[in-house]
Amino acid sequence: MRDLVARLYPLCRSITGDGVRRTLEIIGESLRLQVREVPTGTQVLDWTVPREWNIRDAYVKDASGNRVVDFAASNLHVVGYSVPVSATMTLDELRPHLHTLPEQPALVPYRTSYYAETWGFCLAHDTLEGLPDGPYEVMIDSTLADGHLTYGEHVVPGRVAEEVLVSCHVCHPSLANDNLAGVAVAVRLARRLAGADPWYTYRFLFAPGTIGAITWLARNRERAGRIKHGLVLACAGDRGPLTYKRSRRGDAEIDRAVRHVLRTSGRAHTVVDFSPYGYDERQFCSPGFDLPVGSLTRTPYAGYPEYHTSADDPDFVSPGAMADTLETCWEVTRVLEDNRAYLNLSPYGEPQLGRRGLYGSLGGRSDTKEAQMAMLWVLNLSDGRHSLLDIAERSDLPFGAVAEAARALRGSGLLKECSL
Amino acid sequence: MRDLVARLYPLCRSITGDGVRRTLEIIGESLRLQVREVPTGTQVLDWTVPREWNIRDAYVKDASGNRVVDFAASNLHVVGYSVPVSATMTLDELRPHLHTLPEQPALVPYRTSYYAETWGFCLAHDTLEGLPDGPYEVMIDSTLADGHLTYGEHVVPGRVAEEVLVSCHVCHPSLANDNLAGVAVAVRLARRLAGADPWYTYRFLFAPGTIGAITWLARNRERAGRIKHGLVLACAGDRGPLTYKRSRRGDAEIDRAVRHVLRTSGRAHTVVDFSPYGYDERQFCSPGFDLPVGSLTRTPYAGYPEYHTSADDPDFVSPGAMADTLETCWEVTRVLEDNRAYLNLSPYGEPQLGRRGLYGSLGGRSDTKEAQMAMLWVLNLSDGRHSLLDIAERSDLPFGAVAEAARALRGSGLLKECSL
Amino acid sequence: MRDLVARLYPLCRSITGDGVRRTLEIIGESLRLQVREVPTGTQVLDWTVPREWNIRDAYVKDASGNRVVDFAASNLHVVGYSVPVSATMTLDELRPHLHTLPEQPALVPYRTSYYAETWGFCLAHDTLEGLPDGPYEVMIDSTLADGHLTYGEHVVPGRVAEEVLVSCHVCHPSLANDNLAGVAVAVRLARRLAGADPWYTYRFLFAPGTIGAITWLARNRERAGRIKHGLVLACAGDRGPLTYKRSRRGDAEIDRAVRHVLRTSGRAHTVVDFSPYGYDERQFCSPGFDLPVGSLTRTPYAGYPEYHTSADDPDFVSPGAMADTLETCWEVTRVLEDNRAYLNLSPYGEPQLGRRGLYGSLGGRSDTKEAQMAMLWVLNLSDGRHSLLDIAERSDLPFGAVAEAARALRGSGLLKECSL
Repeated sequence: MRDLVARLYPLCRSITGDGVRRTLEIIGESLRLQVREVPTGTQVLDWTVPREWNIRDAYVKDASGNRVVDFAASNLHVVGYSVPVSATMTLDELRPHLHTLPEQPALVPYRTSYYAETWGFCLAHDTLEGLPDGPYEVMIDSTLADGHLTYGEHVVPGRVAEEVLVSCHVCHPSLANDNLAGVAVAVRLARRLAGADPWYTYRFLFAPGTIGAITWLARNRERAGRIKHGLVLACAGDRGPLTYKRSRRGDAEIDRAVRHVLRTSGRAHTVVDFSPYGYDERQFCSPGFDLPVGSLTRTPYAGYPEYHTSADDPDFVSPGAMADTLETCWEVTRVLEDNRAYLNLSPYGEPQLGRRGLYGSLGGRSDTKEAQMAMLWVLNLSDGRHSLLDIAERSDLPFGAVAEAARALRGSGLLKECSL
Repeated sequence: MRDLVARLYPLCRSITGDGVRRTLEIIGESLRLQVREVPTGTQVLDWTVPREWNIRDAYVKDASGNRVVDFAASNLHVVGYSVPVSATMTLDELRPHLHTLPEQPALVPYRTSYYAETWGFCLAHDTLEGLPDGPYEVMIDSTLADGHLTYGEHVVPGRVAEEVLVSCHVCHPSLANDNLAGVAVAVRLARRLAGADPWYTYRFLFAPGTIGAITWLARNRERAGRIKHGLVLACAGDRGPLTYKRSRRGDAEIDRAVRHVLRTSGRAHTVVDFSPYGYDERQFCSPGFDLPVGSLTRTPYAGYPEYHTSADDPDFVSPGAMADTLETCWEVTRVLEDNRAYLNLSPYGEPQLGRRGLYGSLGGRSDTKEAQMAMLWVLNLSDGRHSLLDIAERSDLPFGAVAEAARALRGSGLLKECSL
Repeated sequence: MRDLVARLYPLCRSITGDGVRRTLEIIGESLRLQVREVPTGTQVLDWTVPREWNIRDAYVKDASGNRVVDFAASNLHVVGYSVPVSATMTLDELRPHLHTLPEQPALVPYRTSYYAETWGFCLAHDTLEGLPDGPYEVMIDSTLADGHLTYGEHVVPGRVAEEVLVSCHVCHPSLANDNLAGVAVAVRLARRLAGADPWYTYRFLFAPGTIGAITWLARNRERAGRIKHGLVLACAGDRGPLTYKRSRRGDAEIDRAVRHVLRTSGRAHTVVDFSPYGYDERQFCSPGFDLPVGSLTRTPYAGYPEYHTSADDPDFVSPGAMADTLETCWEVTRVLEDNRAYLNLSPYGEPQLGRRGLYGSLGGRSDTKEAQMAMLWVLNLSDGRHSLLDIAERSDLPFGAVAEAARALRGSGLLKECSL
């Protein structure tokens, strides 16, 4: 995952353009990707696909011809979607187009202006402070022209048509945690699922934030109804503990599954309520769709000082943290995959587990085991009103133990599957 | 408000009689008041309007002719509804008719006996301790005769016939916090509402406690059904923090509105559950009516040492506390007035706020503002199942910001009003 | 109760056999008991009544003829349901049949093997450590043969056919707290109820654990439907605080009644959620029956070091603790017996309690009494949707005060009984 992050890091991504295309090409080396191109001007829900933006070079040169701000050094230096400019101006004239972080003077901020035509540069406040009055040669060699919005989809086919959606934004340029770490985790999760003969169909969406999710939703209104569970993956690699933000519904199965995994795993974690701000859960959880899609991050949106600055570089991302996010996602899919409801076929009194080889035969001992407790709980609550996840929550046993007990009991003919 | 308290303080009010009439006359100088006179003997729900009580003078004179207990000095000295008496008796004979507070020996208690014919005096325990054996001349020049129960109503007309009730008891004699402060706050609230072109019709009730509320309910059974929200105002001027006592329903809109105002205002406060004891919420929340009427006080019923004693005098009441109670009531009416439900007319994905001038155009910055969060929340939850107050509660934003966002979104055609 | 525990203690009980019969005979001296004999091989729900086990003697003799393990000294020394054996063997050969508690080396454990044919001895680990290599004469003079499973029932007739079940297991040999204390409390509770002309019919069940409850349920499927409330009584005499384990339903009337009694009594106590492990609540709360049966213990199942060891002897049981458990059970029956719902016949405003002699006549005092508060609460909540227990819970008043208020109000014609 670390290599993928490092390779994607230098590309100048935005909500459209060749940086996204190149990103999808590289992801496509690991996953068979359907790449979609949606023309400028296409109406998507309340929005319109904007013109495509591409940029070749940009700089601010001082009187001696030195590039004091240079796109070639870092693509963060140019405000995303800057229109072309070629001019000579004093520092005072230039200043309204310069963005810095006075409180973090060594860092370059990340700024965009997708829907208001303007241009600008981002630089370290320290650099700005050292600039003489000018004049400066200012150049942005960009094009903003009719073209396409590009996104990619990868599907891991399952046994049923119902889908689990995993969505990552791919519109941020040189920012590693936000969201190349999420992309890397998603790629590995997809590959692992492909080898696991899943029950659900898993759809991985790599699309620019906001407009990409909106475009996908506009083109997949019917398919959206098939999404049974979903996760927006972002900020997946910083060293902070995991944070799960619930779906708008608040108690969807995905909300309960993630909470269960986080709680029973003993991981430090936080679960927060939905709010209509953050990443693309904003779109998936808009009231017309109201999909059961939560968001998994480590430190959440805007919650770390490196957020949206040049300090969110590949060193900020930890391979261990990405592995932990991946493992959490995997465990969540284990819950979703196995969460069924069963009916106890011998519901009057406890069935005699001993004669079925399901119970220790020496009575009187108090060291009952998790496996036996799980069997008793599954039998007790398999009344057509409780899923295995309900049982895991009520019993405070790990879902895996509960699912294993259900398998054993089903093997002995004591359970049959039912719907709730 | 302090002046009104001071002016009303000396009057000898009771549940009937000229003290109440004079009180209503003085209130009537500020508000156009409908004064109702209900004859003795009228059946009102389970009760009967009692005989009217009036008193001119009362005293206990010692052997030298000194008034050792004197109604002229404070009307608290006579037990309310005392029948006339004129007798000479020793201290021992008199003692069963004397009420003191041995634990607060310098204070005169407040006592009444509306429904059991008796007479009595209240005095400081210190005074009692100093009294010689007598004999004493004992005189109460009162009348208890057929007459009327008197109460007043003031209506601030609104655009709809549905009403908000604000009720204050006016039966206590020289007690300032209980309830002249409540009366003063109600008078000012009524005047402020009159200038605000309110949505609801506001009914202010100035009536004796218990029997007055019962009489009003008996005469307004139909109108009671129009009461959508209500507050009983009492103990509105002491220096303690505000206390809101929920209606019997517990989650009526008034309960949620007051709690929201108290929480988001940062005021120290307490919210307590309904109990069938206290002020006239007992009657409004009786099970046959079960009106959504809560009670707002500062320190609640019987919760301060000055309660029902001569220490509850105008100095006990703070102008700042009355102003704070008034402001709280006003903010509560702002919530009630503006609490509507809307339907997001662009519910699939977020609508593009930027092109409607509703959103900052420069992306990537993390200092999103309350106004923008309020818009996103209103859009996300305006699905026909949430009122603005629901949204304010879930988002933990001040109601005012949420209402303002709804106004802006409605102005842009993104919302239409709906019913829940 | 202490005498009954002491008298029952030496008997060698198991899930079948003469020990249970003798136990029921002794209980039968206090209560008229219906003793049921169910033949070996009878199908009971998913189980089969096992062969009957009886034992006369058992020992391990060393080379000098000394009984180093001796059933005559304590019946715990033999694993319950041991098949007969008569052999000479070395310590190494014997060792797989010996059970000790290495962590509590002075104590003899309690072990059984009902459904796997084997034999064994239990002894102090200290004893085992001192044993030479042998050889040993090993003898168990037991029979495992067709016979019966025995249980007893005692019924206290009530005015209605609906039943309250009190169930105690009687299958443990020389263990005092588990469950002779429970038996003793049940016997006294039954006698006390018999003198109280109860509303409900009370059924006391003295049966072996698991198989006994299953047998009763199999033979009383219809009657089970009549059980409105139930308690499994166990570990009723240790010095720990009371523990109530909720029924599977969690909010059954019995759950609320016990919690109310424990809370308002000021007793230290714990209330825990249902789990499908412990005593015969496992059977009564199996999903097919799902009876409202909770479990009352002092220190719960397996929660004290003396549990299932020779240290659970009559000295471990405290007469005061048994009396406290009994009193708690009695108070719970007081709630169950009196928990009715009423309709306030004067629901508009408060009825005038004073003229009915139900209210202190001197107003203005703040020391209102529990009895008056109870009357106001009963009037306020008697709207056809609240039982007296609901009212006691919401008002935080003791159930007894609430029931007393209801009696007084009913006596004044202000209430009539209703169903919820």
